[in-house]
Amino acid sequence: MEKMDMERIAFEELKNFCKQAYQRAGVPQEEAEIVADLLARSDLRGVETHGVTRLPIYIERLQKGYVRAKCQLTVIKERGPVTFMEAHGSMGHVVGHRAMEIAIQRAEVYGIGWVSVKDSGHFGVAGLFPMMALKRDFIGYVVSNSAPMMAPWGGRDRIIGNNPLSYAFPADQYPPVVVDLSCSVVSSGKLILCRKKGEKIPLGWAFDKNGLPTQDPFEGYEGGGSLAPIGGHKGYALALVHEILTAVLTGGKWTRDIKSLYEEDRTGIQGTCHSFMVLDPDGFLGREEFKKRMDRYIQSIKESRKAQDSKEILMPGEPEYRTELKFLKEGIPLAPNTVKELISLGKSLGISFMGSK
Amino acid sequence: MEKMDMERIAFEELKNFCKQAYQRAGVPQEEAEIVADLLARSDLRGVETHGVTRLPIYIERLQKGYVRAKCQLTVIKERGPVTFMEAHGSMGHVVGHRAMEIAIQRAEVYGIGWVSVKDSGHFGVAGLFPMMALKRDFIGYVVSNSAPMMAPWGGRDRIIGNNPLSYAFPADQYPPVVVDLSCSVVSSGKLILCRKKGEKIPLGWAFDKNGLPTQDPFEGYEGGGSLAPIGGHKGYALALVHEILTAVLTGGKWTRDIKSLYEEDRTGIQGTCHSFMVLDPDGFLGREEFKKRMDRYIQSIKESRKAQDSKEILMPGEPEYRTELKFLKEGIPLAPNTVKELISLGKSLGISFMGSK
Repeated sequence: MEKMDMERIAFEELKNFCKQAYQRAGVPQEEAEIVADLLARSDLRGVETHGVTRLPIYIERLQKGYVRAKCQLTVIKERGPVTFMEAHGSMGHVVGHRAMEIAIQRAEVYGIGWVSVKDSGHFGVAGLFPMMALKRDFIGYVVSNSAPMMAPWGGRDRIIGNNPLSYAFPADQYPPVVVDLSCSVVSSGKLILCRKKGEKIPLGWAFDKNGLPTQDPFEGYEGGGSLAPIGGHKGYALALVHEILTAVLTGGKWTRDIKSLYEEDRTGIQGTCHSFMVLDPDGFLGREEFKKRMDRYIQSIKESRKAQDSKEILMPGEPEYRTELKFLKEGIPLAPNTVKELISLGKSLGISFMGSK
Repeated sequence: MEKMDMERIAFEELKNFCKQAYQRAGVPQEEAEIVADLLARSDLRGVETHGVTRLPIYIERLQKGYVRAKCQLTVIKERGPVTFMEAHGSMGHVVGHRAMEIAIQRAEVYGIGWVSVKDSGHFGVAGLFPMMALKRDFIGYVVSNSAPMMAPWGGRDRIIGNNPLSYAFPADQYPPVVVDLSCSVVSSGKLILCRKKGEKIPLGWAFDKNGLPTQDPFEGYEGGGSLAPIGGHKGYALALVHEILTAVLTGGKWTRDIKSLYEEDRTGIQGTCHSFMVLDPDGFLGREEFKKRMDRYIQSIKESRKAQDSKEILMPGEPEYRTELKFLKEGIPLAPNTVKELISLGKSLGISFMGSK
């Protein structure tokens, strides 16, 4: 889609609209500020699949009582650098923000902090949480389970998540390195798009409902299939690691019991589990020296010889960083459908979106 | 190769031979015991590429002074659960064992332990180190950088490692879950084997020296190419994470400066860097409850429906576990070439291998 044809909105304006919407849905002001910032920043960084396009479903779930409007995040156990928490079906975004704050505090005291949370919910873009550690020049990490997307290697039941992991590393002159990836080769959204366009998918993206490789995007996901893990058995193993480090460790819901945002769920606990880690470079090289060494490392990668036909070597997080700078200046482009949905949502809540009444 | 035709040797006998060889090469008894156990256990678990087939080169490097015979592992910084160490070119196997012991001790005190080491060397099978945590029902983790194998995504220079990561998780009735994987789709050994057999490789395994996808196994590795990362840019990002968590964090050698075991290296410091983490489930569900929950999780995966034509769903580490039980009973099969090399090595050191003189 050509972004020039889209409507553009300033980051602060988009964030403010989200904040108002959350407050109208019963979210306390401080928490509405947190989740609104995370949602609008997803779009600011070009990750529009996890941004304000989801605001209507988030609000609907709050209104239906499927998510707790006021965050309740309680400590089950605390032991030096390690904290074990329960989120009682609170909004994943707020839970992630608060849990990461605790991991950072622990790292300030112990050099490392680890926080695991059960009974949380969908928290959007994983990468935004480890990035919170960057303000202190710390290294941030998060891992989460998620709704079922993949089958076990050699299996056919869609019972494991593509469970994302994310790291953020500070640098000095270069932008931070931010890794944010799931364990499947492509997202389900990509298959849905191919199905809509009537395109085949390459072998290696998905399996059909019998667990066989497929080139049919419908069979590979909507028809009951499953996404292929990166590196075959390797991505399968990583997805299991991420489930063990979250749901198994905390006694929370396993992937197979987690319903997607778009399914009805009267339990009030979507149940996603997350683990956060923060590491202070002062325990090693020292913060300043580490950042300078990151610069030299980044430079050595970026200035190595390009592949034939390749324009540039990028570090993880670099495209999102550039998008952020660009959209801060030019405004965030929004797809016409998203604008329509947000205007309609605004009307139902009695707030105006982009001047609409 | 048909294993029935191979010579078989008992684990203890193989280990004892390795131990004697290391001692003859100047390694103190206690350290010879550690590295001999790790080498022989690699073969016991069927990971023959990283087992005793490498004993001759390890001994040769000791004799040439390329590796420090007596382990010198010193603390640079210590801060509660976090330890930063320098290995002064000591043998990676011994360094890994000692560093993991420290991480376990730290986890006993703090619930989590993290140890990063610089200036170590090749440490063989990554998975054996996190497995040390299993004796305490802890979770173990290791990550390492390694010799150059891959190019940056969009690049052509072979300057990043396929930097392995490994996790070990205890279970109750089931064998532990042991994940041990590198960030490339296949190993360089697989390309060398295809080249020897005159076989093409599938697109997606490697790039040629210009950074273009290749089906020629020689061009993909020995001819100056590079291995493809799992999931494309995702595996590239993971490989960078592992380098940052080891070499960049510690100020140690980057992958591009690490020579392989088979290259001459008079520096006396191969320079591999590792980081180890240990997590105590008592900070969360509790050790016993965690192991029982691991069992239920493993069962839920293994008993899910198999893909058409699939015989069984395996957990990571299960094949190696079965091999270990089998070879403990039947003896470890050794390839004729390996037997020949070990006999020859034994002769040069004045020790007997499998009854040879």
